[in-house]
Amino acid sequence: MKTMKGVNFEKELAEVTEYWSPRVVGRVNDQYLKVAKCKGEFVWHKHDNEDELFLVVYGQLRIEFEDGAAVLEKGDFTVVPKNTLHKPVADEECGIVLIETITTLHTGDTVTSLTKTIDQQLSN
Amino acid sequence: MKTMKGVNFEKELAEVTEYWSPRVVGRVNDQYLKVAKCKGEFVWHKHDNEDELFLVVYGQLRIEFEDGAAVLEKGDFTVVPKNTLHKPVADEECGIVLIETITTLHTGDTVTSLTKTIDQQLSN
Repeated sequence: MKTMKGVNFEKELAEVTEYWSPRVVGRVNDQYLKVAKCKGEFVWHKHDNEDELFLVVYGQLRIEFEDGAAVLEKGDFTVVPKNTLHKPVADEECGIVLIETITTLHTGDTVTSLTKTIDQQLSN
Repeated sequence: MKTMKGVNFEKELAEVTEYWSPRVVGRVNDQYLKVAKCKGEFVWHKHDNEDELFLVVYGQLRIEFEDGAAVLEKGDFTVVPKNTLHKPVADEECGIVLIETITTLHTGDTVTSLTKTIDQQLSN
């Protein structure tokens, strides 16, 4: 009988060297789980057809919307509904988990120099 | 500009009074996020068409398979692939997050006295 360990978000985050560069660490059904380190401001963007979940592993993440903001502390999550313009901001470094449909591009309909393809996120 | 808080797994778990009784705390795309307190042995079951993710918030969860087991500590997750027979076991109380397709019955194809309908999980 073999014994397996689980995947640990903190350990996966420790391997990440670049900000705003998601790394796929798991998949459940049609959703990827990704870890990312964040610092500074990301770009305003939206995903036309997919929700996006943000869970904070350490630090604090603020997600700005057109009419307000969600402030996430360690252990908090929120879901940005599809077709909702948003901008993640981290005043200090934070570590997060993203859950999103396997086809979702993390910058949504806004392709910038920050955009990473799914292939990049899988080999990150 | 309004400021919103996130949903916190530990706080949601603090509201749970019954073991093995999942409570829906969020939804991303076609997946529910649920919290549950576990102690003792659940039933052997499988889900024919859906993967099921287990994330440990506190304590330790062991997921037994036909040919081994996954041992999850705080902050660890694993995904039980569809059509895989498994039995969650917690020697001491643990708090977990489940991520599974909105149509998934948590006892899979094994309906027992422990089975909670989705309506029960939403109003839990």
